[in-house]
Amino acid sequence: MAKVVQFDAVGGPETLVLRDISVAEPGPGQVRIKVKGIGVNRAEALFRSGTYFEQPTFPATNGYEGAGIVDAVGPDVKDFAVGDAVSVAPAFSLNNYGFYADTALAPAAAVIRHPATLSFEEAAAVWMAYLTAYDALLGTAKTAKGEFVVIPAASSSVGIAAIQIANMLGAIPIALTRTSAKRTQIEAIGAPHVIATEEEDVVERLAAITEGRGVQVVFDPVGGPTFAKLLQAAAPRARFMLYGTIGEPTVVPHFPVFTKSLVITGALLFNTTFDAAKLKAGVEWVVKGLETGELKPVIAKTFPLEQIVEAQRYMESNEQFGKIVVVP
Amino acid sequence: MAKVVQFDAVGGPETLVLRDISVAEPGPGQVRIKVKGIGVNRAEALFRSGTYFEQPTFPATNGYEGAGIVDAVGPDVKDFAVGDAVSVAPAFSLNNYGFYADTALAPAAAVIRHPATLSFEEAAAVWMAYLTAYDALLGTAKTAKGEFVVIPAASSSVGIAAIQIANMLGAIPIALTRTSAKRTQIEAIGAPHVIATEEEDVVERLAAITEGRGVQVVFDPVGGPTFAKLLQAAAPRARFMLYGTIGEPTVVPHFPVFTKSLVITGALLFNTTFDAAKLKAGVEWVVKGLETGELKPVIAKTFPLEQIVEAQRYMESNEQFGKIVVVP
Repeated sequence: MAKVVQFDAVGGPETLVLRDISVAEPGPGQVRIKVKGIGVNRAEALFRSGTYFEQPTFPATNGYEGAGIVDAVGPDVKDFAVGDAVSVAPAFSLNNYGFYADTALAPAAAVIRHPATLSFEEAAAVWMAYLTAYDALLGTAKTAKGEFVVIPAASSSVGIAAIQIANMLGAIPIALTRTSAKRTQIEAIGAPHVIATEEEDVVERLAAITEGRGVQVVFDPVGGPTFAKLLQAAAPRARFMLYGTIGEPTVVPHFPVFTKSLVITGALLFNTTFDAAKLKAGVEWVVKGLETGELKPVIAKTFPLEQIVEAQRYMESNEQFGKIVVVP
Repeated sequence: MAKVVQFDAVGGPETLVLRDISVAEPGPGQVRIKVKGIGVNRAEALFRSGTYFEQPTFPATNGYEGAGIVDAVGPDVKDFAVGDAVSVAPAFSLNNYGFYADTALAPAAAVIRHPATLSFEEAAAVWMAYLTAYDALLGTAKTAKGEFVVIPAASSSVGIAAIQIANMLGAIPIALTRTSAKRTQIEAIGAPHVIATEEEDVVERLAAITEGRGVQVVFDPVGGPTFAKLLQAAAPRARFMLYGTIGEPTVVPHFPVFTKSLVITGALLFNTTFDAAKLKAGVEWVVKGLETGELKPVIAKTFPLEQIVEAQRYMESNEQFGKIVVVP
């Protein structure tokens, strides 16, 4: 029997329960994985609470990210064999697969051979964060060398990934964080500029950092009252990408948008992960960065699988710096 | 002496005063026009009240649009001669030129020979409206045949232009207006669908009209509380263009933007009018529509130049259907 986290109704972290379940043999196009590390994501908290773009069917599983060892392969699977060390990209519906478990099926199309230098905990912390930032900064914004890239929620796993990816592109990341509490940590992972939005004048700081040229790229899961300041601080034709919903209502004044021809768009990693060619290109790009060390996931804290509820509560506390990983 | 409207301080319509002024001979690259028709635009009310993207220098003139007869040409101007019937596109700063006057200088680059079938009143009502809608629907959105195009503020001159241009493209315009008061007029100029936003369920109506497919293009000067409903009613990858500021604050919920990869951008006719090649292409496209009758400006009301203050008040009343034109 496998240990699998399930939930039977939408609600808070306490709805998640650990059950002994029999996991099926992999079917065509599937592999089964003995899970050694699980990345915990905000999307999974939304799915659990019924506020995600798809509703759970019960009993529901959860978890977009896992790393571990292949345990069995489906009849037609040629790319993986029992014993392979692999991790999984979020290229599926949470109603079909979930990695909050010690054993889980995965669609072979989502399975990746990550660099051997990564631990399973690290490998479980890569794909959601780095493919989200990759999809936005390369796929959508086509960020160029020398451009200023504003990154709100900089201490999140996606924010950290975006800072590293901006640096790898030769762009200039400007990290935004609410208070100075995490400033030193954010600087330590390579942000040359950090602005504490509740303590500093955001518009003035951005004008100073960009020497009046304005910012070209904004990659924002927060929105809220800071968003209008970022529109004000934008260079003509700056690209704004929204990828989450952790902020207060975002009011968009029309004037800077139409006088500067700004572009506000969504960034959705599924645009990369559900397209086999794009996923392959994204994985290769990220693997290159992981191998050189330019990209390196930061793990905030690990929890045993039995403490999945505590892991979710910790994520919702917003106290972490980097990724929360659960270890079966 | 010419009659020229000036103002010496920002403020309401009453700041505009009619003065007897001597208008200079045209310099290099300029023509002088005996003005026979003046289009009145909301941008000019913003300029007058100090809320436009550029501030007036005093004594200030005003007016983006005029039509009339060439009265004198600058030393190097080859394309126009005295006696030509012309109209002017908004391809200049209001601090340099203004057509609230019976005689005015114009930059030759902004001067257009419009179809002879247009009266001067009609010719004065073309370029701001049709080039704004052209820039957005063709230049930015690249609207395709069969696409659903939502047009808030449908009874404005730009809204009417957008309805006609959408029809000319083979797209399907959906006109939005606050109440049913102007419904019949909007239908009469060719809108197959009209929604009164304060009286009907916008999301439900759009779902019914598009048979659940969602809308692909939104061309919106209003924003406000309706905007979130349009995001909800959007098809994946729908393009939203903002081009004005007549509405209440626009709150943008992130969820539809990033789950549907929606694009919100500014539409600024200056992107077309300040680029000689784009302006030429735009003028040719619009002239073609004017000649076939697919495009036809609607004049709400005309005022004599002495009543420029009343003309501005009438515009700000939002009671008009179409363009307000002033006749010297």
